[in-house]
Amino acid sequence: MTETSTQIGTLDELYGVLAERSYEPLWTIKGALTPEPQTQMVPFLWPYDEVRDLILQAGGLISAEEADRRVLAFKNPGTGDHEIARTTDSLWAAIQLVMPGEVAPPHRHTAAALRYIIEGEGAYTVVDGQRVEMEAGDFIVTPNWTWHEHGHEGQGPMIWLDGLDLPMVHTLHLVFADFTGSAPAANGQSTEALSSGRLLPAWNGGQTPRTLVWKLADVEAAFAELASAPGSPYDDLILEYRDPTDAGNPLMPTLTAYMQMLRPGVETQPHRHTSSAVYHVVRGSGWSEINGEKFSWGPGDTFSLPVWAEHRHANPGNSDALLFSFSDRPAVESLGLLRES
Amino acid sequence: MTETSTQIGTLDELYGVLAERSYEPLWTIKGALTPEPQTQMVPFLWPYDEVRDLILQAGGLISAEEADRRVLAFKNPGTGDHEIARTTDSLWAAIQLVMPGEVAPPHRHTAAALRYIIEGEGAYTVVDGQRVEMEAGDFIVTPNWTWHEHGHEGQGPMIWLDGLDLPMVHTLHLVFADFTGSAPAANGQSTEALSSGRLLPAWNGGQTPRTLVWKLADVEAAFAELASAPGSPYDDLILEYRDPTDAGNPLMPTLTAYMQMLRPGVETQPHRHTSSAVYHVVRGSGWSEINGEKFSWGPGDTFSLPVWAEHRHANPGNSDALLFSFSDRPAVESLGLLRES
Amino acid sequence: MTETSTQIGTLDELYGVLAERSYEPLWTIKGALTPEPQTQMVPFLWPYDEVRDLILQAGGLISAEEADRRVLAFKNPGTGDHEIARTTDSLWAAIQLVMPGEVAPPHRHTAAALRYIIEGEGAYTVVDGQRVEMEAGDFIVTPNWTWHEHGHEGQGPMIWLDGLDLPMVHTLHLVFADFTGSAPAANGQSTEALSSGRLLPAWNGGQTPRTLVWKLADVEAAFAELASAPGSPYDDLILEYRDPTDAGNPLMPTLTAYMQMLRPGVETQPHRHTSSAVYHVVRGSGWSEINGEKFSWGPGDTFSLPVWAEHRHANPGNSDALLFSFSDRPAVESLGLLRES
Amino acid sequence: MTETSTQIGTLDELYGVLAERSYEPLWTIKGALTPEPQTQMVPFLWPYDEVRDLILQAGGLISAEEADRRVLAFKNPGTGDHEIARTTDSLWAAIQLVMPGEVAPPHRHTAAALRYIIEGEGAYTVVDGQRVEMEAGDFIVTPNWTWHEHGHEGQGPMIWLDGLDLPMVHTLHLVFADFTGSAPAANGQSTEALSSGRLLPAWNGGQTPRTLVWKLADVEAAFAELASAPGSPYDDLILEYRDPTDAGNPLMPTLTAYMQMLRPGVETQPHRHTSSAVYHVVRGSGWSEINGEKFSWGPGDTFSLPVWAEHRHANPGNSDALLFSFSDRPAVESLGLLRES
Repeated sequence: MTETSTQIGTLDELYGVLAERSYEPLWTIKGALTPEPQTQMVPFLWPYDEVRDLILQAGGLISAEEADRRVLAFKNPGTGDHEIARTTDSLWAAIQLVMPGEVAPPHRHTAAALRYIIEGEGAYTVVDGQRVEMEAGDFIVTPNWTWHEHGHEGQGPMIWLDGLDLPMVHTLHLVFADFTGSAPAANGQSTEALSSGRLLPAWNGGQTPRTLVWKLADVEAAFAELASAPGSPYDDLILEYRDPTDAGNPLMPTLTAYMQMLRPGVETQPHRHTSSAVYHVVRGSGWSEINGEKFSWGPGDTFSLPVWAEHRHANPGNSDALLFSFSDRPAVESLGLLRES
Repeated sequence: MTETSTQIGTLDELYGVLAERSYEPLWTIKGALTPEPQTQMVPFLWPYDEVRDLILQAGGLISAEEADRRVLAFKNPGTGDHEIARTTDSLWAAIQLVMPGEVAPPHRHTAAALRYIIEGEGAYTVVDGQRVEMEAGDFIVTPNWTWHEHGHEGQGPMIWLDGLDLPMVHTLHLVFADFTGSAPAANGQSTEALSSGRLLPAWNGGQTPRTLVWKLADVEAAFAELASAPGSPYDDLILEYRDPTDAGNPLMPTLTAYMQMLRPGVETQPHRHTSSAVYHVVRGSGWSEINGEKFSWGPGDTFSLPVWAEHRHANPGNSDALLFSFSDRPAVESLGLLRES
Repeated sequence: MTETSTQIGTLDELYGVLAERSYEPLWTIKGALTPEPQTQMVPFLWPYDEVRDLILQAGGLISAEEADRRVLAFKNPGTGDHEIARTTDSLWAAIQLVMPGEVAPPHRHTAAALRYIIEGEGAYTVVDGQRVEMEAGDFIVTPNWTWHEHGHEGQGPMIWLDGLDLPMVHTLHLVFADFTGSAPAANGQSTEALSSGRLLPAWNGGQTPRTLVWKLADVEAAFAELASAPGSPYDDLILEYRDPTDAGNPLMPTLTAYMQMLRPGVETQPHRHTSSAVYHVVRGSGWSEINGEKFSWGPGDTFSLPVWAEHRHANPGNSDALLFSFSDRPAVESLGLLRES
Repeated sequence: MTETSTQIGTLDELYGVLAERSYEPLWTIKGALTPEPQTQMVPFLWPYDEVRDLILQAGGLISAEEADRRVLAFKNPGTGDHEIARTTDSLWAAIQLVMPGEVAPPHRHTAAALRYIIEGEGAYTVVDGQRVEMEAGDFIVTPNWTWHEHGHEGQGPMIWLDGLDLPMVHTLHLVFADFTGSAPAANGQSTEALSSGRLLPAWNGGQTPRTLVWKLADVEAAFAELASAPGSPYDDLILEYRDPTDAGNPLMPTLTAYMQMLRPGVETQPHRHTSSAVYHVVRGSGWSEINGEKFSWGPGDTFSLPVWAEHRHANPGNSDALLFSFSDRPAVESLGLLRES
């Protein structure tokens, strides 16, 4: 007090006192108030031939105990030197290889996760005690703080895409993780008939288990029904994965996922939005133009869409193209920050 | 004014003036404020042998033009002479027979309807242009003001149970009906993959069609998953039909429906509630005690549960019993009038 | 069984058997499916001079013990001989007189109630232990199953309008009433600062008490703010009473209430809806045309608006007119039966 | 392809290839998955004597054109060298001085803001064209993307606390700002009677304007009503500011605010949660213990509560203490990341 009531003679002197006592004039925030979002993240494409080759070579080079290194993150080239790798500002995507006989022990964290199975069959995951078999084309969710583990009881390599909201949760300093606690025992029970949301146990405490897996065959059937629909001018036919037991809400509070079909000859209109996304090509080939740069893609390729980047898609070929994608749209929307143009 | 300011000398004189001028002292309402609900409706059972014989004989006695008379309502014996037939105060149930080649033209009304198919296959219904094939075990909804029609392109008699909220809608004087307007054309399209609520068209205006039909096989699968669940003390295993595209809400604003499994040897606890219901036996046999009276039932039988009637169920046999039922519970609940004891 | 399998020879014989065994062919319901709602209720107006004179004369003719007869219901002339008096099909309105020193003991019922205070001050009501002082212009709610009682500690007669959903609750056979149980003690506490909904106790179990009373002065202030608003073409300026602690929902599940201002010279457009209403004139004079019949009204008059009746209002004078009204709109809407044209 | 299919001989070689091609093994994320949240932010207290002296001295040193520098942010000492100043990871708080005759031109941004007025009267703010007068004790909100401006038409310095969610919005790369567009004209209209949420314009398009200002007198009245309530073991009496026109939701999607009263002699229990907060002392004195460190506070002091920091409060004196605080709890909760222990 005595000190601060000392008369300060110049602006420079004032700034010195402020810095020393943990104050800051308005400057910093003024610079932060940009007319539009600024990001270091760039659009980038990781070709599947390269991804697959590298993950398989990594599989051969590292020992069994190091099996959890058989995960390669798609690190956006805009990531800074001392920052956590991320694919967009809020999303982290990676390729994971699991070999027959391998097991990942149960753990959980506040980062929510999802998987899209690219190759193989015979592996399984257990989410909060509910066991789900995995095969190519499956889309599987592991919500925030659910126990999860996996293993591979089949033949041949199993490869999938992992998607997490970790950069967002980490940035908000809200990471909890548990690698040592006791997960509930796997019950081996399939509950998909119930979890379709069509039948609800009506007695007190009876609860429909939430949906964990969506099969590609169901997605294909839905596209078949919609074959003659007009679709979206920006995305052609696009389906959002939803939990029928909680139909009014997005899949998870921070993440949602889509499968979109670009019909032959389609070239969509450009648009942009304040959610970011990671795309993975399931089948077909085509191109996407992001902030003026054209990315040609084929089966297995993965590419990033930063926040507020203008983009459009095209399928110049003669057969359908399928793009899987996931996005932080639910978080952006619930914070009141979703915009599109 | 001049008249009314006349001095009235006695209570009798007052009552005369009041009656003449459309006033009434508090009496009437006082009598209406009973400690508990009063109803003329009684518990009653209509045996299927009788029902089936009468509807088939009716089918033979009436001409093709009168085919819409092949509907027999379950008229509660408590219904008054000049009142509309009803099964409980708010619910109307009936048996309907459709013969091969018959067609019912499209119509719609503000009374909501549901059907449970008892016998036959090869018939269809069209609800707001969406065609649904019907076979035994199906549960089908026709919400308020949806166009509906049906026909029978198969072999043999088709028999189903109809359930409507007509007594409630009629009592509230809110009936609209349209027998002459143009229904949307049947599009022959099945949309069940979409309407499971697992995949939602994500473009603007894309809407998941609502669920119209639930198959018995799915219900059986759900019961199989729940085989070792504790169940409800009042109802054993009981599943509510839900629309996965609108999972937070009951099936219709006025009606919901259940399938319950009474496992061998089960005898439930008595309870009562301010919703009324109609039960239909899908398979097995047993008994229900309603307000102290025991009703033995077997396959195809239908019985009524009036408002606030104490009831319990038992399956003394060696195999499962399945009871389908529908109820006005959503209406009672949304009006803030649901109670159980 | 044996009986029913007997061959029935004629339609007449069939009808006899059906009637005897509690079945009914489709006829009844067919008749019930009218193109538009049918009601016996008529538009009717009860002039306040007459109402006030009769209730005061009744006050003088009946003894203290019979004080609860100082309630005169507005009985719609369309009410049948053996039916409960009602003002519209779902609403019951009455005038109530309370003299200084009189007390009504606590009771509760599943019929929800509201009051609009017409004359006097110095009376109070206690709703579930929360005491509210009453004066002319107050609007007060007594939701379903809340304990309520009242007394008059002031001078001069106290006159108010009572509105209940009793005809609806009675028709649905869902009346419970309790005249003998123990009401919570009156706590004398005003909680209006909290119940404005602007400040919410944030600790576990802390709950904002629901709003019970709205003052005319606040209503007048709101109209002053809206003086230059365009208003509704059907109702001019109309405000719905809302509970700010539960702002997303109507006042009660079955009832809502409005105050509307007809500005000088206003003549509204006709419309109709499937909710019914009772209007009470707070100040000013004008006329309403209902189903083609014109009703001129002045301060204190009460009139009924049946279901689906076309109506419009006019204020040909030089000063504002205020109409209070209550309606079953929330019930009709939650049952999916609301329509307007 | 050709390159990547080259055999890679060692792990080091592999890591080189991965880095070059924008992949990263699982390491980074593993390190990010900490058992509990990690933050650089520390608890810190800025005393009001110092704050007030510095802002007034700053007011004298800078010219009129630089008036927007009369804002001093509370910069958490844990903030890194090249980072935007912040008070906690998600919240930014500052002290603002406005002198008579000064005006801040209209602007808007996706960062949401709130103000608590510490000293003075005669200033005003305009939020989306709605003008609100400001005096000490007022709490005022400026939601995401609303136009806002202010001016001072009174005497003497006006000092307030600003709270923004800017660090969160900036971190998510979702900042939009507009300093040049046209704000709606101030209409000079107070709409507080409507915005209490008790009266809702019922015509189509009529909308109750949202609540913008809460007066300290109303807060004091609410505390008076709750004087004998048990309160929270962690916070004693604590009230959350709510918008009665939207009572089911928090004040803003990212921010909420509280006023809490620590009654004389109170010492609360410790707890912690994944939301962070900034506290400002309105009156009284006491201490708060945060992560084991005790901070003594008096009127006008401001202190920070980082994420997941254990804390408790005490008022050892003989008169009430009032603490205003704001928090990112709504954001943390809607993302599914709220925890307390």
